[in-house]
Amino acid sequence: MNTNLKKTSHVNHHHDAKVNGSILAPVTVIGLGAMGSKLARTFVNNGHVTTVWNRTPEKAAELVGLGASGATEIADAIAASPILIICVLDYDAARHILEPMREKLSGKVVVNLTTGTPEEARTMGTWIRNHGAEYLDGGIMAVPSLIATPHAVILYSGSQTAYETYKQVLERLGTSHYLGSDPALAPLNDLALLSGMYGMFGGFIHAVALAGSEGTKAEDFTTTLLMPFLQAMISTMPEMAKQIDTGDYSAKDASLAMQAAHDTIGEVSRVQGVSAETFAPIFELMKRRVEEGYGGDDFASVIELIRKRPSS
Amino acid sequence: MNTNLKKTSHVNHHHDAKVNGSILAPVTVIGLGAMGSKLARTFVNNGHVTTVWNRTPEKAAELVGLGASGATEIADAIAASPILIICVLDYDAARHILEPMREKLSGKVVVNLTTGTPEEARTMGTWIRNHGAEYLDGGIMAVPSLIATPHAVILYSGSQTAYETYKQVLERLGTSHYLGSDPALAPLNDLALLSGMYGMFGGFIHAVALAGSEGTKAEDFTTTLLMPFLQAMISTMPEMAKQIDTGDYSAKDASLAMQAAHDTIGEVSRVQGVSAETFAPIFELMKRRVEEGYGGDDFASVIELIRKRPSS
Repeated sequence: MNTNLKKTSHVNHHHDAKVNGSILAPVTVIGLGAMGSKLARTFVNNGHVTTVWNRTPEKAAELVGLGASGATEIADAIAASPILIICVLDYDAARHILEPMREKLSGKVVVNLTTGTPEEARTMGTWIRNHGAEYLDGGIMAVPSLIATPHAVILYSGSQTAYETYKQVLERLGTSHYLGSDPALAPLNDLALLSGMYGMFGGFIHAVALAGSEGTKAEDFTTTLLMPFLQAMISTMPEMAKQIDTGDYSAKDASLAMQAAHDTIGEVSRVQGVSAETFAPIFELMKRRVEEGYGGDDFASVIELIRKRPSS
Repeated sequence: MNTNLKKTSHVNHHHDAKVNGSILAPVTVIGLGAMGSKLARTFVNNGHVTTVWNRTPEKAAELVGLGASGATEIADAIAASPILIICVLDYDAARHILEPMREKLSGKVVVNLTTGTPEEARTMGTWIRNHGAEYLDGGIMAVPSLIATPHAVILYSGSQTAYETYKQVLERLGTSHYLGSDPALAPLNDLALLSGMYGMFGGFIHAVALAGSEGTKAEDFTTTLLMPFLQAMISTMPEMAKQIDTGDYSAKDASLAMQAAHDTIGEVSRVQGVSAETFAPIFELMKRRVEEGYGGDDFASVIELIRKRPSS
């Protein structure tokens, strides 16, 4: 079956006795959307025997042209490689593909790069392990065009053995971080990073709208003022993180009481015709924290109002 | 009067014919809180004849020990230098100090680094100009400890002549940006930058709380994952800014419809016991924008929901 699948003519690689788990392990990629296709292309470009499968097989054509093996049957795609990379729409789609193949999974390493929730990752991990395979869940913090560069960060959690065996293979795709054996950790940290990004982007649109209310161009403001300022403010995060870890929020420079004394940003936004709806809840947290008696704390102290209490 | 004020014993500078407006112009600093004291110390350290005044004169003692002239009377402080740097609690305090001195301001350059609103800056600028002085409003984007480093960014707006005359003097304090002749621009851009910072910090606490809900330490998460990710996301801002300036928001990678299809961050936050109150309004903006028919746009498109419409 394998011989039918392999198209090695364009593939530049060496077979050796330890090809499984080595840097040149054969790889199967299941799901050929924009991201899956880029993952598969990266393996092909790096000389891996790469088998690809997609529900609609037309999507494999370009990859086959580059040297991948296009599997018509999912069973063939699974049989072709010791490591299966799955990148489909959601966990339901992944389960729908894998369920009928459950007897074929034994001994495989399943790397699920599909976007989902911590709970979905845990459930999938248990199901995969129950069928004799090892499971790695992954969260890709990048757009397809960044894949195969160090700027593509991919978070992994689940089987440490699987991660260590295939670390070099996975690092074809970008910068890898292994977060621990609970498969939930990759999607949880993925969502945490995205929530950080959305907060920053919410601040970005408010800042640009406010500066723009007197005619400043977004690009001038962003490149000359906002980006260097945010860079400088990012550098204060390790100190805030230390405060959060230790619970000692003693203000060094500007206390919450000072920061929340007047809602100047909200008031000036209103005068300038800009909605402060992304800023308002942050100001509310600062005010509440001051009201609860923590006016002498630094900003990071407001996390106590939103995070799970240690006791709960 | 000047001779009584000057204490030149510790001051290392050269007098020359063009000392006014030159890099070694005498400087008066009014207001000696944490920030004002640091400003004054910076001028002293750079060899300026520096005169200081504070409502409670005890605050001048340390600076006088370093070589500053401590003025007992505000009139003497104003007479001592062609450029007056004011850094007090608020614009009311600044006005209260300057009102009785209005006949002494003619020919001076008044640089007001007090924190305030665009409207306060405009009013102050008009008042100062009406008394024959030139006015620069300034917004300090730094804590006192950063002053005198390139990391202290100070925004100026108002008299371009005054800015150009004293640019080298002002650059003792940090990196200067001149934004235009309307005095409102410095405080407006100051508040815009702060709103961007608070958005980012709101995202920061949510991200740390979410990752921390399964025990990840804030410092590990912040330094290993969040900071590099935010750095990468900052690099997408010029492209978003260009979209905002042109109004062409065609999605390149992830459309609003994709991003707002499921509130995964909100739902997972709830499951993990973390409040998503800083994220919720951003998700609401994305959803509203999709509902209004802009699902094919990139994220930056949501600014249209919060900014002043060009027609208004």
